Amino acid sequence: MSDTAGKTIQCKAAICWAAGEPLKIEDIEVLPPRAHEVRIHILYTGICHTDEYTRSGKDPEGVFPVVLGHEGGGIVESVGEGVTSVAVGDHVIPLYTAECRECKFCKSGKTNLCGSVRATQGKGLMPDSTSRFRCKVADVSVVAVNPKAPLDKVCLLGCGITTAWGAVVKQPGIKGSSVAVFGCGAIGLGLIATSSMVGASRIIAVDTNPNKEAWARKFGASDFVNPAKLPEGTRIQEYLVELTDGGLDYTFDATGNVHVMRAALECCHKGWGISTIIGVAAAGQEISTRPFQLVTGRVWRGSAFGGVKGRTELPGLVEDYLQGNVKIDEYVTHTRKFSEIGEGFHDMHSGDCIRCVVDMS
Amino acid sequence: MSDTAGKTIQCKAAICWAAGEPLKIEDIEVLPPRAHEVRIHILYTGICHTDEYTRSGKDPEGVFPVVLGHEGGGIVESVGEGVTSVAVGDHVIPLYTAECRECKFCKSGKTNLCGSVRATQGKGLMPDSTSRFRCKVADVSVVAVNPKAPLDKVCLLGCGITTAWGAVVKQPGIKGSSVAVFGCGAIGLGLIATSSMVGASRIIAVDTNPNKEAWARKFGASDFVNPAKLPEGTRIQEYLVELTDGGLDYTFDATGNVHVMRAALECCHKGWGISTIIGVAAAGQEISTRPFQLVTGRVWRGSAFGGVKGRTELPGLVEDYLQGNVKIDEYVTHTRKFSEIGEGFHDMHSGDCIRCVVDMS
Repeated sequence: MSDTAGKTIQCKAAICWAAGEPLKIEDIEVLPPRAHEVRIHILYTGICHTDEYTRSGKDPEGVFPVVLGHEGGGIVESVGEGVTSVAVGDHVIPLYTAECRECKFCKSGKTNLCGSVRATQGKGLMPDSTSRFRCKVADVSVVAVNPKAPLDKVCLLGCGITTAWGAVVKQPGIKGSSVAVFGCGAIGLGLIATSSMVGASRIIAVDTNPNKEAWARKFGASDFVNPAKLPEGTRIQEYLVELTDGGLDYTFDATGNVHVMRAALECCHKGWGISTIIGVAAAGQEISTRPFQLVTGRVWRGSAFGGVKGRTELPGLVEDYLQGNVKIDEYVTHTRKFSEIGEGFHDMHSGDCIRCVVDMS
Repeated sequence: MSDTAGKTIQCKAAICWAAGEPLKIEDIEVLPPRAHEVRIHILYTGICHTDEYTRSGKDPEGVFPVVLGHEGGGIVESVGEGVTSVAVGDHVIPLYTAECRECKFCKSGKTNLCGSVRATQGKGLMPDSTSRFRCKVADVSVVAVNPKAPLDKVCLLGCGITTAWGAVVKQPGIKGSSVAVFGCGAIGLGLIATSSMVGASRIIAVDTNPNKEAWARKFGASDFVNPAKLPEGTRIQEYLVELTDGGLDYTFDATGNVHVMRAALECCHKGWGISTIIGVAAAGQEISTRPFQLVTGRVWRGSAFGGVKGRTELPGLVEDYLQGNVKIDEYVTHTRKFSEIGEGFHDMHSGDCIRCVVDMS
């Protein structure tokens, strides 16, 4: 039992007060956890493009002021009444996709989405529609992991790397098939690494940043295509269909750009190609294509958090990492002290940053 | 051996000379079949909306002049060299989706599409890029069926009814699930009948024509929703999500309207709903949606000829019909003599016509 249990505590938090404004580090108070809530001492967090997406004001669901961060790692400080799944001192990863195991979604066996806290989470509130600030999460939104795993690395399993890993391993048929990955950020590289791990026959990385070629090949890509360097008038989807004698078996969008999403669908092989959208598009933007693309056998789907059930599957993924079967360290190109979190956001926009982890310990 | 074998013959044909013009019955010559070609005496044909789609000029692939009709039934008059799969006198159904069993597509095990004659078929030509007129088809585009089956009925298996049947039976999981069918023409009713046959738990038919309610219920719909009669400001997708407590497990578009295709996707259940496009949209029209619809677990796909391999599966479907397991007669609301084929096209536009069969015997 920590001596702060049951008390309101003082914390530092990087707050974005309004859309588009830089983060400011402020002192905040955090109320004690209520029933089925967990207060976590967050030690590390990765910075994800969707944090920047919300900060910038492009996220239609963004609510301000906000304490960003959803790729965290920390230690349970105290728990509210009825919490049985984690205990004080546990090393934990907060889950942006909860897993209550009781709702229609969790029981369906068909999806990792969970209906339990979605409505309030989207508003930045706890499940009882009140706020205690975000060092606290609902118990269905947190999972304990092996304390031997370094939290400054496995925090990235809270979003990016898990999303990429799950999108590939939960998609049957990639072994022996051709794959194209659009966008070579952390998610894209994770898709490449996992496709390579499961035995894809060919992995084509697509990015407009030529510096990403070395990264993509290091993670397992067999080909690299820069859409900005195609012959004039050639669309990337036509180029890839030609290059692969008919199109790809599987494609993934990891850019969030709706035009790229279209290209990723249209370079799929007629008759069986499957394209998965992972990137998050800006508010109001829409994907489109000719329906003939689908009628002739392509499938357009998406994936959130890689289809992974966080409480059920993350501990195993941490073990896979500890055994050397899943890369994490390789993604961390930058680390920043908490006081430098604003610079961390700038790092992300530079072409040579895969993931920046913020050290709040 | 017919005494016309090897000779050029005279036939009547209903020709559309230019986009948007009415059909004219003309005398045409039909050359004898070359290697791997089959000359068929067409006795009956159903009139399908895609015939009208081409006649009207909306089909970007339409080529004029053209002899329409792709829901035919007939008897083999003569065959070219090397034809072994059908013989003179066989009762046959021409296949608008060929099945050569040798191309990459046929061998994939993943699709019913076939690459063998696609390029030339789209131009209205035989596989050797020349024309002999359309009483003739490539041998990979024709299948012999039980001669006991009435050709004025089973001709409808050449397109509409097979398309609907296959789209349902080849989609795993419909048994015990909820289904919505948009559009209650022949395809829509076929989707309803087949969903009912495989054991869907709820089948919601959607059509703006109130007269279709009785038809939909006769074929197995449990609910009928008229989008034109919703409270003002209510979109059909929102109405259906509400009605089904979260959305449908499976939806089908059988309208060809891109706005309806979008509604059919968006009324799918988050996490697992699958929407299948069957209708053919007009040239240049595109489907669109927010990518979030897919990221949250909905799947957008399509189906051509119901995913059915014509030479392999149609003979069995004819047997199913003869044994009373597949409805066909019930779809034929109108019959027309060949000289009245223009009126047959008008019938199709009337709200009370499901299928009009033209008698050319």
